[in-house]
Amino acid sequence: MTMPAAPPADSFATRREEPVFGRLAIIGIGLIGSSIAHAAKAFNLAGEIVLADRDEAVRQRARELGLGHRIAESAAEAARDADHIILCVPVGACGTVAAEIASALKPGAILSDVGSVKNAVVEAVTPHLPQGVHFVPAHPVAGTENSGPDAGFSSLFLDRWCILTPPEGADENAVTRTRQLWEGMGAIVEVMTPQHHDLVLGITSHLPHLIAYTIVGTAEDLAAVTQSEVIKFSAGGFRDFTRIAASDPTMWRDVFLHNKDAVLEMLGRFSEDLSLLTRAIRYGDGETLHRHFTRTRAIRRGIVALGQEKPETEKLRKS
Amino acid sequence: MTMPAAPPADSFATRREEPVFGRLAIIGIGLIGSSIAHAAKAFNLAGEIVLADRDEAVRQRARELGLGHRIAESAAEAARDADHIILCVPVGACGTVAAEIASALKPGAILSDVGSVKNAVVEAVTPHLPQGVHFVPAHPVAGTENSGPDAGFSSLFLDRWCILTPPEGADENAVTRTRQLWEGMGAIVEVMTPQHHDLVLGITSHLPHLIAYTIVGTAEDLAAVTQSEVIKFSAGGFRDFTRIAASDPTMWRDVFLHNKDAVLEMLGRFSEDLSLLTRAIRYGDGETLHRHFTRTRAIRRGIVALGQEKPETEKLRKS
Repeated sequence: MTMPAAPPADSFATRREEPVFGRLAIIGIGLIGSSIAHAAKAFNLAGEIVLADRDEAVRQRARELGLGHRIAESAAEAARDADHIILCVPVGACGTVAAEIASALKPGAILSDVGSVKNAVVEAVTPHLPQGVHFVPAHPVAGTENSGPDAGFSSLFLDRWCILTPPEGADENAVTRTRQLWEGMGAIVEVMTPQHHDLVLGITSHLPHLIAYTIVGTAEDLAAVTQSEVIKFSAGGFRDFTRIAASDPTMWRDVFLHNKDAVLEMLGRFSEDLSLLTRAIRYGDGETLHRHFTRTRAIRRGIVALGQEKPETEKLRKS
Repeated sequence: MTMPAAPPADSFATRREEPVFGRLAIIGIGLIGSSIAHAAKAFNLAGEIVLADRDEAVRQRARELGLGHRIAESAAEAARDADHIILCVPVGACGTVAAEIASALKPGAILSDVGSVKNAVVEAVTPHLPQGVHFVPAHPVAGTENSGPDAGFSSLFLDRWCILTPPEGADENAVTRTRQLWEGMGAIVEVMTPQHHDLVLGITSHLPHLIAYTIVGTAEDLAAVTQSEVIKFSAGGFRDFTRIAASDPTMWRDVFLHNKDAVLEMLGRFSEDLSLLTRAIRYGDGETLHRHFTRTRAIRRGIVALGQEKPETEKLRKS
């Protein structure tokens, strides 16, 4: 695979003249659902935006925040007559919600989701798809450490990747319009199979999250070093892990349970590599350590070059 | 230990009326050495700032950059008649450099360093200390992913912790003046024993670095996922690890070799915890995962509350 062009440094999404969809339904009003509601309204991506959440307190808060145009009482009510329906619920709930809304979906509607795992979602949702409804799974690779209806904002997807994993033989028009929706929110769209998605995200997202959750827990359990000290001296490296380990627990539980094979495979490799470096430390093998630490710099340079992150000094100098 | 007060959000270092030291010598012109040179000049912390580096190309670059007031040809030349001498070299080189400069140190001079490991530095340097020279080891918990004389900037230590580990019975005046130097550069100074320092930094800095170096290496070795894909989709969590894994290889090799016991101890605990979560994933034990992911959020909140980091959404919205 060749290196993709870097997104323009000052790119931005603009308000469309004509919406992509007549009615957009968002099921689940967390960080992602509320961000889609903000972005779809700001950039005129749907004529009407209807949201639903199974939690009455969340629905009430969404009304207060003025999210979308209407808050429905149930997922099925939101989905009825919608042209594009996005499941913004934890991966483990996608099958159940798809079953709930199936009879409300109109022919030609496009069902989508935002799950961080794709193979399990495809398997859970597909059996409930009515004839004539298109399923185009999506995964916006974007997020913050915050969750809930208050956490969303319209620029969350700007210059971030959104991966679509349409099933073989999917309706081309449905894929194109789903792409238009995400591009309309500023995302850069990439298409791959659900299986490959789960491998790529297994290493770039799921394994890092599991490791961050682990190390923060390990730090918390120490008796010799107080939690207050861990917090105070976190700038030495630990801080970056805590940001990741503050992500939504339900979402991440579901990710690990539903991408088990890829995560266990990556974990196995990681543990082997960690053993090798542990051994080098134990036996004072500085050469192995230095060689390893040198080659890992190259990947970082690639990320900075691709515009997925500014060099740290630049950020520090500005702040 | 009680929670320390958060540093004021808009704190800054100001130019002193009177310098803390007559002559300041900086041995080693990397990120930290060049940052001290910038800061000491900007905030008037020394009457004369002399730098040295064993690499002629680095000395030449330091001259071009106008670092300090003078670039000496050798460490001993820089240290001669200096009131405060800071070793800014990798931890493993501190003993050798201390031996080199020992005979040039004047009575009453304060020798210090910036090593990320303290116990090994104390053991390596102490035998070379001439009578009447005070040793006040220091560790500024600050850095970026960049190294070399061009990487330094005067605000690197602003609002960051600097840990002093003076030996028992150390000269109080020497500790006070070392504290004044670091506070003059904007740092918040904390005093502890070298042994406790190595434990605290073992969990907050050394273990996170080793794990970040490991996972970036694991990602690089995958055949099923290309390096280009790892780079593209790094925003899912991986990116934060790559920043850490781009740190200076020589410095970090020395850290692990010289804080072996604490790092191996933390690694052991981390591996046990990781095994527990791995097992929960393998056997589909969602409850264990959810419980673990919930408690790690508390530490993150502490870090944000302490002003050591802004909440991520705030940063994103601004950018």
